[in-house]
Amino acid sequence: MSDVTVIGLGEMGSALARAFLRSGLRTTVWNRSAAKAADLVAAGAGLAPDAASAAAASPVTVVCVSDYAAAAAILDDAVLAALAGRTLVQLSTGTPREARTLAAGMEARGVRYLDGAILAWPRQIGGEEAVIVASGPQAVFEDAEPLLRRLAGGVIHQGVDPGAAAALFAAVLAYLAGHWIGFAHGALVARSEGLDLAGFGETLAGLAPSLGADSRHMAAVIAGGRFAEPESALATAGADIARLVQQAQDAGIGDAWPRFAADLFRRAAAAGYGAEEHVAIVKVMG
Amino acid sequence: MSDVTVIGLGEMGSALARAFLRSGLRTTVWNRSAAKAADLVAAGAGLAPDAASAAAASPVTVVCVSDYAAAAAILDDAVLAALAGRTLVQLSTGTPREARTLAAGMEARGVRYLDGAILAWPRQIGGEEAVIVASGPQAVFEDAEPLLRRLAGGVIHQGVDPGAAAALFAAVLAYLAGHWIGFAHGALVARSEGLDLAGFGETLAGLAPSLGADSRHMAAVIAGGRFAEPESALATAGADIARLVQQAQDAGIGDAWPRFAADLFRRAAAAGYGAEEHVAIVKVMG
Ligand SMILES: NC(=O)c1ccc[n+]([C@@H]2O[C@H](COP(=O)([O-])OP(=O)(O)OC[C@H]3O[C@@H](n4cnc5c(N)ncnc54)[C@H](OP(=O)(O)O)[C@@H]3O)[C@@H](O)[C@H]2O)c1
Ligand SMILES: NC(=O)c1ccc[n+]([C@@H]2O[C@H](COP(=O)([O-])OP(=O)(O)OC[C@H]3O[C@@H](n4cnc5c(N)ncnc54)[C@H](OP(=O)(O)O)[C@@H]3O)[C@@H](O)[C@H]2O)c1
Repeated sequence: MSDVTVIGLGEMGSALARAFLRSGLRTTVWNRSAAKAADLVAAGAGLAPDAASAAAASPVTVVCVSDYAAAAAILDDAVLAALAGRTLVQLSTGTPREARTLAAGMEARGVRYLDGAILAWPRQIGGEEAVIVASGPQAVFEDAEPLLRRLAGGVIHQGVDPGAAAALFAAVLAYLAGHWIGFAHGALVARSEGLDLAGFGETLAGLAPSLGADSRHMAAVIAGGRFAEPESALATAGADIARLVQQAQDAGIGDAWPRFAADLFRRAAAAGYGAEEHVAIVKVMG
Repeated sequence: MSDVTVIGLGEMGSALARAFLRSGLRTTVWNRSAAKAADLVAAGAGLAPDAASAAAASPVTVVCVSDYAAAAAILDDAVLAALAGRTLVQLSTGTPREARTLAAGMEARGVRYLDGAILAWPRQIGGEEAVIVASGPQAVFEDAEPLLRRLAGGVIHQGVDPGAAAALFAAVLAYLAGHWIGFAHGALVARSEGLDLAGFGETLAGLAPSLGADSRHMAAVIAGGRFAEPESALATAGADIARLVQQAQDAGIGDAWPRFAADLFRRAAAAGYGAEEHVAIVKVMG
């Protein structure tokens, strides 16, 4: 017997297994392509011959593969038989609906199921910065929590709805997509105007605390419906963003991002929200 | 005579004038609609009868109006005659090209010209968090710097190219557009799945330091062309973002943002960058 099993040894799954091993847990691993287990076996992991044996080896199994379809391909009858009465922690990314569907299937088979989402890069796993959000029955969370704390400094029980962790992940990812795309266009602007890219990165790093505070503020504005009396109006930001289209054309860089953003702000202003908070764009995005 | 003149008393211009007054400077103000000057006059500002008299009242004039067209409308022959040999600090937002054009015009008229951009909300003016970036001749920057330090904790000389401050502003704004739009869609996701919005805001506030570090990292990746060997591949993020389209459809919320983002990641993966860093999307945005 081992303490924990990890199924799926891609970038993230192997980071999870490494963190368990480093924290002193007896760890069983399995991956469809066995080659990816070699480093972990050298570091002390036990390699199971198949997924069902892997699931049978520990009271708790963590699965982290590409998506729910991949997880479903692994969770065949033999694996489910091995998991009955034990705990499955599912950390592959999916939609809230996929999480709820899998949770219902696991409940029907007598598997104690916790659905989770990882807010971290693989290198952060095992450290203070990593955050894991989980959702499902309180009792299952409490059983799994000590294990999850070996993976992440932040472990949050997002509620009993099994879709809640995937929902928070999706909401955060929607934000991250803006972080990546906005940064990439900003870098094009900087380069096209002869600015130093490192200085652009430093400027944003310096603004990060303000932006974190602004996220908290925007959440309160939307939750309370308090869009009126902004410090800076949606129409002003919209005019500034429209100017990014002009800059892109002047500088001969792509304008897909500023056109998308300017169009959204323009539609919000046209709908009558020009004098409100920037985040009133949400009213034309729903 | 006064120490400084502020032309344009909208949300931002009046915050600038207030900060000058609070710091003990004799301040002259002028605004197209005189009513906006009332509070400042009550606080000790001198009100000029027209823009030319305002410019004649101080060695340095700060202009902060909606855009360069508005600034140009104010900077007529009488005002330029008053400004000759004096310093004009232009803090209205515009494109780098507009800044360079205005700078050339001011040089031709013998006006010492500094172009700047404000990275702050009006409420932050006069405080540590506010940042003002300025570009133009070193000597003009050095003259204006003590005044600018009364407005912002961070005062950066972005270089002698008069377009550089506007360029940095544009690059940062491209990022902020992602911050606002990504947040707004994330809030829709959270609400559609029954999550607490405050918790979403807190989660992003908690991630802000990591995201600041990630901006620094992305700048280094692009500057050095080091897109290979990511911790997490563009294709993985792209698949996760594609799932946001599914979530939006499942939950019955708008899908314009995830469709735009997913399409961009899909194009980057199709162009052969799927195994690279997320920010390799820049390669199909240029
Ligand atoms: N990497 C990150 O930065 C990060 C961050 C947060 C969340 N996540 C999430 O973590 C999960 C794993 O990501 P990753 O970066 O580890 O991905 P990855 O490196 O691409 O690994 C994918 C894993 O899934 C397995 N797999 C895929 N299809 C399968 C199938 N049909 N049957 C069996 N196994 C299958 C692969 O097995 P083979 O080796 O046999 O192909 C491999 O173990 C994803 O849901 C991702 O969204 C990742
Ligand atoms: N507010 C912010 O959060 C913020 C942040 C960073 C940068 N900025 C930049 O600061 C600048 C001013 O923004 P704001 O928030 O103060 O805008 P605002 O509240 O809308 O004020 C606009 C100002 O421009 C004047 N104006 C417009 N057209 C004019 C014209 N043709 N002739 C003369 N005056 C004209 C207005 O005069 P009237 O009063 O007579 O209309 C008013 O003083 C903008 O470029 C903005 O991008 C603002």
